[in-house]
Amino acid sequence: MLEEGTLSMELIDGKEIAEKVLEECRRDIAHLAESGIKPGLAVILVGDNAASRTYVNAKDRKCRELGIHSVKLELDAAVSQEELIATIEECNRDDEIDGILVQMPLPEHIDESKVVEAILPSKDVDGFHPVNVAKMAMEDASGFVPCTPLGCQRLLTESGVEIEGANVVILGRSMIVGKSLALLLMQRAEGANATVTVAHSRTKNLSKITRRADILVAAIGRPRFVKAEDVKDGAVVIDVGINRIDDPEAKRGYRLVGDVDFDAVAPKTKAITPVPGGVGVMTIAMLMANTVKSARLRRAGD
Amino acid sequence: MLEEGTLSMELIDGKEIAEKVLEECRRDIAHLAESGIKPGLAVILVGDNAASRTYVNAKDRKCRELGIHSVKLELDAAVSQEELIATIEECNRDDEIDGILVQMPLPEHIDESKVVEAILPSKDVDGFHPVNVAKMAMEDASGFVPCTPLGCQRLLTESGVEIEGANVVILGRSMIVGKSLALLLMQRAEGANATVTVAHSRTKNLSKITRRADILVAAIGRPRFVKAEDVKDGAVVIDVGINRIDDPEAKRGYRLVGDVDFDAVAPKTKAITPVPGGVGVMTIAMLMANTVKSARLRRAGD
Repeated sequence: MLEEGTLSMELIDGKEIAEKVLEECRRDIAHLAESGIKPGLAVILVGDNAASRTYVNAKDRKCRELGIHSVKLELDAAVSQEELIATIEECNRDDEIDGILVQMPLPEHIDESKVVEAILPSKDVDGFHPVNVAKMAMEDASGFVPCTPLGCQRLLTESGVEIEGANVVILGRSMIVGKSLALLLMQRAEGANATVTVAHSRTKNLSKITRRADILVAAIGRPRFVKAEDVKDGAVVIDVGINRIDDPEAKRGYRLVGDVDFDAVAPKTKAITPVPGGVGVMTIAMLMANTVKSARLRRAGD
Repeated sequence: MLEEGTLSMELIDGKEIAEKVLEECRRDIAHLAESGIKPGLAVILVGDNAASRTYVNAKDRKCRELGIHSVKLELDAAVSQEELIATIEECNRDDEIDGILVQMPLPEHIDESKVVEAILPSKDVDGFHPVNVAKMAMEDASGFVPCTPLGCQRLLTESGVEIEGANVVILGRSMIVGKSLALLLMQRAEGANATVTVAHSRTKNLSKITRRADILVAAIGRPRFVKAEDVKDGAVVIDVGINRIDDPEAKRGYRLVGDVDFDAVAPKTKAITPVPGGVGVMTIAMLMANTVKSARLRRAGD
């Protein structure tokens, strides 16, 4: 017999919701095509980090599937910062490119913040440029919100989770996820207006804090860190972590687990995202959505 | 006989701490004078709002007291946005001006964000320019943090309050105070590393949230909104509110009260700021400190 918690638990299906986002993209792309506009994304890969290459290829493939003009620029690991920035500036000038993404991490001799600042804010579909960070903080919807927090928000709204007035606890304070999601969910806006707490490595009595969450978001990059006793009965849990752990039985010798101990936590929750198949698939869908948004804003005057 | 709470309660003396900040400014100003540098602040007042004029005059007076070059620019309420921006650009070009401040609010025909964006970020001592907002979010200490949150942080550190790991609840999510203070206190930095919750008008069970605070900051602009039952025994309370309430017995017909019901709350606290004499006096001191910081960065290459 199943426990009560198990009966009511909903698995938040990232693939299904991502497909809905992509369907919206297709509709917008078809609409733009009527005006002769094809959204374009340039992805710049420096060096030959295997994981980075996998991500870049996945983005390229998704663009082609959707009918987004995809430009993959591969630069040698020894490229100078000046050459990299010159490549970005070419993309800035190219009217057919609506989005520019530099795959991180970059080699150590390159200053990542200088590179991000070289991207035209209106083409910064990753939302990492200071102008877009400020817009998010200042609740100016004309900017780009980073894809992962945007994906988390969409997972919640599509699952019918009430965000307004909810106690949201975010584990992790990175600019790419935790802090950005906090700024997003505390906005005076639909799908926001939450009471947000940001917890992190210096938080005392962490379990006491996370147990207060109606919505708990784990974004700390520690495999299965969140245990059953850290989660309130009936909470909604969003697991941003994608951690590789050794698994001799797996084909590749490893498998992916989240920041949440899924098997132990899931039965207590009202809804939870799996890893993989949760936040990860949303991130790439939101990148497509941001690229289409850029094309609409830049070229269709929407 | 006094209650136990009363015996241990400390009044956080904004005047005394502000004086310490100003003393540091004097020392830096004397040091800059050895290199022939005198920090300069331009304050721009549009129209003749009585309260705005009072603030501008107070800033001008404080500059003169300290030996900061003070330029007060008064423009007619009917000034065009272009003329106002042209005035700002003159200040941007003037090497003797290290800080530029446009007194808010502006007349309705002027777009405040356009005006703020016209200020050179390196002279934006109010910390409202998007470049400085982004730096604060991204933990880049080279920017300017808005004066009121900066003053709140200093009140805490000077009073020996442990911020690291503390549960901070901030009531209010304005960019000028609440959200900025949240970003500041969650930084990986000294006088920060707090677990921060931002609560606001849409927060449910507000009293339950505020009672969890080791440090409670009220910044909502509602007179005496925070009552005794909203505060945990032994909490530290920072009252940012400055509200006028009618008082026939006062000379001016009104008096100033904070967002906290001081008489009821104070006896429960470990420490609390009064209104006036708390955060308010710090704001102007931090403006002086930001102006001196700008002169050091811009002209002394510190």
